[in-house]
Amino acid sequence: MIKVVVIGSGNVAQHLISAFQKESSIQLVQAFARNINNLSRLLDASKITSDFSELKEADLYIIAVSDDALTSVSKSLVFKNKLVAHTSGSIAMEGLSDTNKKAVFYPLQTLSKNKEVNFKEVPLCIEAQNEADLKLLREVANSISDKVFEIDSEQRKSLHVAAVFVSNFVNHLYKLGNDICEEHHVSFEILKPLILETAKKAQVLLPDDAQTGPAIRKDSTTINKHLAILTDQNQKEIYKILTKSIIDHGKKL
Amino acid sequence: MIKVVVIGSGNVAQHLISAFQKESSIQLVQAFARNINNLSRLLDASKITSDFSELKEADLYIIAVSDDALTSVSKSLVFKNKLVAHTSGSIAMEGLSDTNKKAVFYPLQTLSKNKEVNFKEVPLCIEAQNEADLKLLREVANSISDKVFEIDSEQRKSLHVAAVFVSNFVNHLYKLGNDICEEHHVSFEILKPLILETAKKAQVLLPDDAQTGPAIRKDSTTINKHLAILTDQNQKEIYKILTKSIIDHGKKL
Repeated sequence: MIKVVVIGSGNVAQHLISAFQKESSIQLVQAFARNINNLSRLLDASKITSDFSELKEADLYIIAVSDDALTSVSKSLVFKNKLVAHTSGSIAMEGLSDTNKKAVFYPLQTLSKNKEVNFKEVPLCIEAQNEADLKLLREVANSISDKVFEIDSEQRKSLHVAAVFVSNFVNHLYKLGNDICEEHHVSFEILKPLILETAKKAQVLLPDDAQTGPAIRKDSTTINKHLAILTDQNQKEIYKILTKSIIDHGKKL
Repeated sequence: MIKVVVIGSGNVAQHLISAFQKESSIQLVQAFARNINNLSRLLDASKITSDFSELKEADLYIIAVSDDALTSVSKSLVFKNKLVAHTSGSIAMEGLSDTNKKAVFYPLQTLSKNKEVNFKEVPLCIEAQNEADLKLLREVANSISDKVFEIDSEQRKSLHVAAVFVSNFVNHLYKLGNDICEEHHVSFEILKPLILETAKKAQVLLPDDAQTGPAIRKDSTTINKHLAILTDQNQKEIYKILTKSIIDHGKKL
């Protein structure tokens, strides 16, 4: 049985703790939280510490804290030559302290406290310094997820940027759609099936092959009608730049 | 039993024909296609005509053709005072010829030939000139969809703009994400669960409450790292404008 310690008490840490607790092949030895109360919903108090010097022996320590805190937390670890992984999409593996063996255990999913997620479906991107460490990491990752990918720090950084486009920016477009509906007293409910179907299409078709709408048809009549309806300058500007991008870079039909 | 004729043979027409054929309360009397072969997969040849003068008697004629062809097709109808609906998101009901009673029967979904869709989940936006016509339209719409909305032409136009944001533009962001992955030799597969989860979140949370990522956190360190990774000027510009929009218009955390 592989012994794991999770360091952190935020979103990612909590989802990892829950996922590990469901797996018999993993022994979640302990979790670290500056504020023990953050994890008391998930773990018995005896399994939580807020003192780095009390961290127990384990095969893998996963630091799931904010990017800002990562370096200082990794330097606070008092032991040496243990396998220590971080969970960040944008920090290189080398960002961890040199006193321990470095690794990355990056769950690429939007995890929120108010929404359950099936961790088996969460892609885990792993990286380590040598094959032995990678083997252990792979075993831990495979135990909680069906989608494990081995990618290096450079690839992970570009993946993180791509994730901002397909998730953070996409959600902002949902927000702008919602704003337009509210301004014109139309229910956003009408758009929800379209939102889901557009995402489902991307599971089976290449985005280039799924593109529809006035921009890809170069339908300037409709485009101009739309621009006339939009009164908000920010919405107008985003409409223009994305329409231009589709016309210039979309696959010619 | 309500008698319906579908005029057109494209995507929307074909999905409507399939949906009506499944419903016992609707009699699909006939379909019109300039090229009969377009519909031969769906209908017996005796039920297809390419001659406007041969259109049979029905309670409702649905014109499902491109926006450009809509006016001329509605003027080609030889009968008078019948109920005629179009399926366009961006044309006002008044765009139909005055010789018949006007209506709108607008399915708000991304319909493609290469992907099946459960029509019961497709929102149908309906509009008519009087309550009697609306009643019939409502009955037809309810027979094939569980999501029927009565909205007027002005609302429908703004809804169509909002749909461009949450579907056409969103799909373009998927494409840019895919491009970034290809440029850096990372599999786009890793992003697919994130794409789906982001859309699922929008079904239950307001987009403002679901926003995550460096922009809403005003995390300029990560934002600058991302801009350094992007080499394509178009990607950079879109990253900047959407990040600015999230910072300026996102709900303060």
